Amino acid sequence: MSKIKIINALVLTMDRRNRILNNITIMIENDKIVDISRTADDNSKQRSEKRDDIDVIDASGMIVMPGLVNCHVHTVQTLFRGVASDGLGLLPWLQEYIYPMESVMDREEVYVSSLLGYAELIRSGTTTCADMQSVRYTDKAFQAAEQIGIRATIAKSMMDHEESVPESLLEDTSDSIRESERLIKQWNNIDNGRLRCMFGPRFIQGCTTKLLKEIAEIMNVEDAGIHIHAAENLQDIENDMRRYKKRSIEILDELGIVGPKSILAHCVHLSDAEFNILSKQEANIVHCPSSNLKLASGICPVPRLLENRINVTIGADGAACNDNLDLFKDMKLAALLSRISKGSETFTTSAMDILESATKAGAKALGLSDRIGSIEVGKKADLVLVSLCNPETTPLFNIPNQLVYATDGHNVDTVIIDGKIVLKNRKLTQIKETDLISDSQSMAKRIAEKSGIDRKIVDFNS
Amino acid sequence: MSKIKIINALVLTMDRRNRILNNITIMIENDKIVDISRTADDNSKQRSEKRDDIDVIDASGMIVMPGLVNCHVHTVQTLFRGVASDGLGLLPWLQEYIYPMESVMDREEVYVSSLLGYAELIRSGTTTCADMQSVRYTDKAFQAAEQIGIRATIAKSMMDHEESVPESLLEDTSDSIRESERLIKQWNNIDNGRLRCMFGPRFIQGCTTKLLKEIAEIMNVEDAGIHIHAAENLQDIENDMRRYKKRSIEILDELGIVGPKSILAHCVHLSDAEFNILSKQEANIVHCPSSNLKLASGICPVPRLLENRINVTIGADGAACNDNLDLFKDMKLAALLSRISKGSETFTTSAMDILESATKAGAKALGLSDRIGSIEVGKKADLVLVSLCNPETTPLFNIPNQLVYATDGHNVDTVIIDGKIVLKNRKLTQIKETDLISDSQSMAKRIAEKSGIDRKIVDFNS
Repeated sequence: MSKIKIINALVLTMDRRNRILNNITIMIENDKIVDISRTADDNSKQRSEKRDDIDVIDASGMIVMPGLVNCHVHTVQTLFRGVASDGLGLLPWLQEYIYPMESVMDREEVYVSSLLGYAELIRSGTTTCADMQSVRYTDKAFQAAEQIGIRATIAKSMMDHEESVPESLLEDTSDSIRESERLIKQWNNIDNGRLRCMFGPRFIQGCTTKLLKEIAEIMNVEDAGIHIHAAENLQDIENDMRRYKKRSIEILDELGIVGPKSILAHCVHLSDAEFNILSKQEANIVHCPSSNLKLASGICPVPRLLENRINVTIGADGAACNDNLDLFKDMKLAALLSRISKGSETFTTSAMDILESATKAGAKALGLSDRIGSIEVGKKADLVLVSLCNPETTPLFNIPNQLVYATDGHNVDTVIIDGKIVLKNRKLTQIKETDLISDSQSMAKRIAEKSGIDRKIVDFNS
Repeated sequence: MSKIKIINALVLTMDRRNRILNNITIMIENDKIVDISRTADDNSKQRSEKRDDIDVIDASGMIVMPGLVNCHVHTVQTLFRGVASDGLGLLPWLQEYIYPMESVMDREEVYVSSLLGYAELIRSGTTTCADMQSVRYTDKAFQAAEQIGIRATIAKSMMDHEESVPESLLEDTSDSIRESERLIKQWNNIDNGRLRCMFGPRFIQGCTTKLLKEIAEIMNVEDAGIHIHAAENLQDIENDMRRYKKRSIEILDELGIVGPKSILAHCVHLSDAEFNILSKQEANIVHCPSSNLKLASGICPVPRLLENRINVTIGADGAACNDNLDLFKDMKLAALLSRISKGSETFTTSAMDILESATKAGAKALGLSDRIGSIEVGKKADLVLVSLCNPETTPLFNIPNQLVYATDGHNVDTVIIDGKIVLKNRKLTQIKETDLISDSQSMAKRIAEKSGIDRKIVDFNS
């Protein structure tokens, strides 16, 4: 049995009362938190060291919080970071850069790109992610997640609509469903439930009506949800309207896709009717503020969604459009943007609201509320230790404010997922980071060359 | 003579052509860059070490860029970080938190608060700042800047308008001017020109017409500019309109305050006539995106300012409203916000535009274009070495994109200001950081107690 004892901790529980507890010992056995109590005085003299069969971690000067839940990321695009320069909107960005690069990736490149993404996520305090891969080689993403130790719910992209999907990524409807079902059979609830699998119809535009309908039917019987992009961009919504004479959320609702088992990424542009649908169907929304600004999509109306008691989670989206997967940064941006989306000072999203979005709300969206999202006895040990002894986090008056506005992922010192220490003193324990960086650089170059994107990249070097 | 030799550098020059040069050696003698050349092959084997009288820095895996110029910060408020929780607009925030805390600060607290701010600035790559202090003890800020090695243009706040300034901070007009002139005499161009002094009429509301007029007259003969807040918030502008029957920039222009020697912080809400004034008078604007969102002020219309060829710089503002002084983060936010402020995809501010704002434009605003803002022979050695060998900065396709969107101040490894290494391997060389952090924490608590603000701070601890 593996045991970890965290002592002298200042703990942000994110339990029902969002409590902050001082001078706490957290006992972890195997994958679970088994005890939370005051640190005994004699314990406070213990230092971080391996003692017998217990790993003792002295959390003095740090806050211990639940690991962050990033509900929308594309780690398959991590190797595309920075290729598409400024000023492109969603659809040209997809057509001119992302599809061509995804098309040419081989198994090994999918593996390394995903591993690089997971490495960045863990290093910045994310312990769980909902990851949408490309159409092929999704097993390699599961293998990468398995190796590095992240909790991940992964979906293969499903795209069978020949009018808008390039030949190189187009799938046959039944092949797409068969492959998704195989992945679910092979990977769902693997590794003590740490790995899970979802259906990933990419967005309305990329899918036939038949595909979306069939997925909705299968979802009702399978223990697997749906991860989809929705109402991200005005052009995208216009295309949906042209095809169905309805707005995007209305279409998805009629097809049976909107509900508590689905996560809808973006939802930037919504009609009143669509707010009602999201509320009634207990939908889960993923707010991706950096991505939505970088691709000029707009701003998700988070304050209004929260007023309507809709479950709002946060996502970093991919490195090709963010270009940074640190969810602390998107928490800050989400908090700041909430102050302009209603154009007044009367309603703003508090720092604690944002912390809820990035922990409990994410857990709920992924059907993992009983396991993760808070620090409580009986829950999984998915914890992050954040250093507070830095000039930029001093003085310490208000912990939620500090975590959302002053801290970023670089202040994360230690990460525990499923009871295993996967980051210690900022070093990943399960992989060799230097090898990952050099492999990533050479593979990124290879993908750019194979896809012809290298000719589009501005060469600033002289 | 002190000499530093940086070898194997990838250099972003920010010179006239914003070049990126590979495999470069930069020679520094005393405070200046004396040579930029290709690194000789035999040099590439050298490692970072002190050799004879030369400090050799191996910049492999890093980019060398000009130090960032933060044109609007209040380091006197660094000890207030996080006190004012979410949801307050500018004026109540000032009246209820900032003024009461500034009022009770003693000399030592001003010193430590400023030192903490400068420490954070240096650690995140800022080499020059324009710092607006409170009304008292501004000498202590100069002493802190002198000690830690930052390049700083510091202004004492000037506030003599009894209708809106609390008694505890109110000054007599001529005393305020006399004190500012004494500071200029004592500190302007001290320490090889590294320290400079400005006039700091805080904002229209806090000043009498007489004060603003007299400052404008003195500025014409003195080698000192003006640092002022302007057109930050709708309520603030309404107050100006009520008093003068004119808009804020129009008022300042008539009083002779708008011009190339002044820096105008914020400028969030501008009329067409005000755009014209700013353009005609060659004004310098400081865009403070985090602060403007946190205090629900709005968004500075940067794309339109740039189209009008107005000099736009960037500021982090104070830790009491940002709450982080890392200018890399405000660069990213500025870039992202430029995509919504015009509501279309047709004009966006490029990553290189943003880098210009944070280097060259800042240098120009502070009258330091001949000395800083770019890496060129003959200029001051104000340089930042940023590590690129991290998961979050891999792969490296596009350097400006990477610096603005993927990097943050934590990736800064080494900082050189005026030819002196002030940060090395992320350690400040001129002060002891642990002492600074503990002094800051205790003094912040003391200020909160003295001002009664401690009773307003939500206590989350249980």
